[in-house]
Amino acid sequence: MRAIYLDNNATTRVDPEVVEAMLPFFADQFGNPSSTHAFGSSIREAVRKARRQLQALIGAEFDHEIVFTSGGTESDNAAILSALEVMPERTEIVTSAVEHSAVLTLCGHLEKTRGIKVHRIPVDRHGRLDLDAYETALTHRVAIASIMWANNETGTIFPVAKLAEMAKRIGALFHTDAVQAVGKVPMDLQPTAIDMLSLSGHKFHGPKGIGALYLRRGLSFSSLIKGGHQERDRRAGTENTAGIVGLGKAAELALKSIDDESTRLKSLRDRLENGIVQRVPGAFVTGDRLKRLPNTANIAFQRVEGDSMLLLLNRYGIACSSGSACSSGSLEPSHVLRAMDIPHAMAHGTIRFSFSRDNCDEDVDRVLEVLPGIVERLRSQSRSGHVADTSSRVRSGE
Amino acid sequence: MRAIYLDNNATTRVDPEVVEAMLPFFADQFGNPSSTHAFGSSIREAVRKARRQLQALIGAEFDHEIVFTSGGTESDNAAILSALEVMPERTEIVTSAVEHSAVLTLCGHLEKTRGIKVHRIPVDRHGRLDLDAYETALTHRVAIASIMWANNETGTIFPVAKLAEMAKRIGALFHTDAVQAVGKVPMDLQPTAIDMLSLSGHKFHGPKGIGALYLRRGLSFSSLIKGGHQERDRRAGTENTAGIVGLGKAAELALKSIDDESTRLKSLRDRLENGIVQRVPGAFVTGDRLKRLPNTANIAFQRVEGDSMLLLLNRYGIACSSGSACSSGSLEPSHVLRAMDIPHAMAHGTIRFSFSRDNCDEDVDRVLEVLPGIVERLRSQSRSGHVADTSSRVRSGE
Repeated sequence: MRAIYLDNNATTRVDPEVVEAMLPFFADQFGNPSSTHAFGSSIREAVRKARRQLQALIGAEFDHEIVFTSGGTESDNAAILSALEVMPERTEIVTSAVEHSAVLTLCGHLEKTRGIKVHRIPVDRHGRLDLDAYETALTHRVAIASIMWANNETGTIFPVAKLAEMAKRIGALFHTDAVQAVGKVPMDLQPTAIDMLSLSGHKFHGPKGIGALYLRRGLSFSSLIKGGHQERDRRAGTENTAGIVGLGKAAELALKSIDDESTRLKSLRDRLENGIVQRVPGAFVTGDRLKRLPNTANIAFQRVEGDSMLLLLNRYGIACSSGSACSSGSLEPSHVLRAMDIPHAMAHGTIRFSFSRDNCDEDVDRVLEVLPGIVERLRSQSRSGHVADTSSRVRSGE
Repeated sequence: MRAIYLDNNATTRVDPEVVEAMLPFFADQFGNPSSTHAFGSSIREAVRKARRQLQALIGAEFDHEIVFTSGGTESDNAAILSALEVMPERTEIVTSAVEHSAVLTLCGHLEKTRGIKVHRIPVDRHGRLDLDAYETALTHRVAIASIMWANNETGTIFPVAKLAEMAKRIGALFHTDAVQAVGKVPMDLQPTAIDMLSLSGHKFHGPKGIGALYLRRGLSFSSLIKGGHQERDRRAGTENTAGIVGLGKAAELALKSIDDESTRLKSLRDRLENGIVQRVPGAFVTGDRLKRLPNTANIAFQRVEGDSMLLLLNRYGIACSSGSACSSGSLEPSHVLRAMDIPHAMAHGTIRFSFSRDNCDEDVDRVLEVLPGIVERLRSQSRSGHVADTSSRVRSGE
């Protein structure tokens, strides 16, 4: 039985070309790029190339706007903490109720320990940001607005260019956690008012443990990790050269195929969604169907536990997730589904299928083949009625 | 001409066995260890194994005392910031004047922006800590004492077990930046009073971009990077599984040969030092000759610029450094040499040779063959006298 991996929003397979690009930087070109001797200088050029590959992928104006970090979470933390530090007279943060825990956990901590006021802008049933609430929260007390480019669970895309313009008007910085969007949708940061952007290598077939923070030229910035002068004093610590080279290669590969892959993934995704909705009664697609990542399907099922579905799908060799990977293992519906006000019983029964370049038509066929039976089986087991039927409320939500 | 790498305190070659151990975790076992499906679970066991390999290397009592980070700098930052956060009533830090920039830059920043008082304990001409000054600085206002296990430039080893006991007496936490010591000297943390220890993979033939923070069981800790629940809430962000596995393998390899290698490196090092002192007039060994890392030789030369020596050695294919890698590129003597009060003209002419398991007798022969000529050539070029002769002062210091 071939394993089918449909959890690419959690992490992706490192592309073999990426591994190949990284290999020389372990045991051969292993020098420290900060060293002045020959072992260091050849590596500096490789790091510079990777910076340009990332610059191209996100449409940054200058390559030095890219700062390498250990990943998306570090980038998110660095962006928000820096804003509070460079604008100490501003003590509020605007974010959304559906951000990744990298943003929300930090904000909660700042609220508790430093008296920072955090505005968590709500979303509607389709996961779309409440723009009026966003505008109201934006005052001259706000140091930074941090809104994700695309949601990891539903794939819903936020209008970040517009949100950045609105933040700029009141002199706040705008940061976007674009971890789920980079490499999946075309980007051109240069003409926007976006000040900072977080990305992570392992979400687009690069290695884990490497990411970047885009910092618009001229921006005041205070580094999260302090020490040596690496990355122009914006991120201390010996550069992870193999990781950086791998991230650069992953960016190059993503950019090369971004349009074709987007079309192909969308077609796989739509076929999966339509197939499930047709075959399984009481199944509906969550998120904004108009503005979504091409690769993400988040499907809610009435009267069935998501974790039980995951378990049975896993037995058929199909890997996906219920809610985000970070919330897995808990029986509570994820904070994203709660924010969308999807009824409790429904949210339990939500499965995220996320595609990548490694998936094909057969993967969709296989899910459509086994999923209806799994849902039927679980539903007949729970006919005892311990899960309330909330179908009428949910349907009105769709 | 074979290249000779004698800059192993800057970074080391990744051991081919380490690369081999990492490889399956890029394109094959690429899952997210936080995922509940089959792609995640096989990887959790690999991460657990790496934790135990590190535990064995440093003699920790429990494997969960190991928290994986992106490297030594992050670990140092996390340790110090956590201490200030969990003991807000204490507002002082005790450290040494010769710490790595990962500690000193952060401390300087905390002094400026948060009014933290930093005691930088001086060292003597051999780089040994002033124990009286250390004891005097330790009051109930001190949240944390952070003293390195071994100095990166001179290799001088500090009596960290004793320093930790002294800190414990006044209720302060004790952290040690052991980045240069781990894998080079045997360690047994369990019976000590050391609360936290930083280490970095690439200093002992592991990959760059991965390190760890040892946190004694039961210690209150506030994570530097906040987000998901990875590493028992002590370090958020998707685990760098390939890096973690590589770090574990590097720890295993280091532990296996630590006694034999220590003897072998010491012999190479001593032969280099004695050979240079015999062949080059006005050369002397810096640091504590009794308590030093086995692999590090820091040699000062009168009337000659270190950077010019580096350049010429580099032409002969020999890579080493003047001062720490972090201070290279600057003409100022490093803060370590300044703290040791080695006269300015002398400190300029200081070269660090640092060995590893990749070095052999022929490397020493080659340096002894070319170095005397290089020094002589540079000295005859500078006979014009623009560098003052401070030999009498220096000799009295040795």
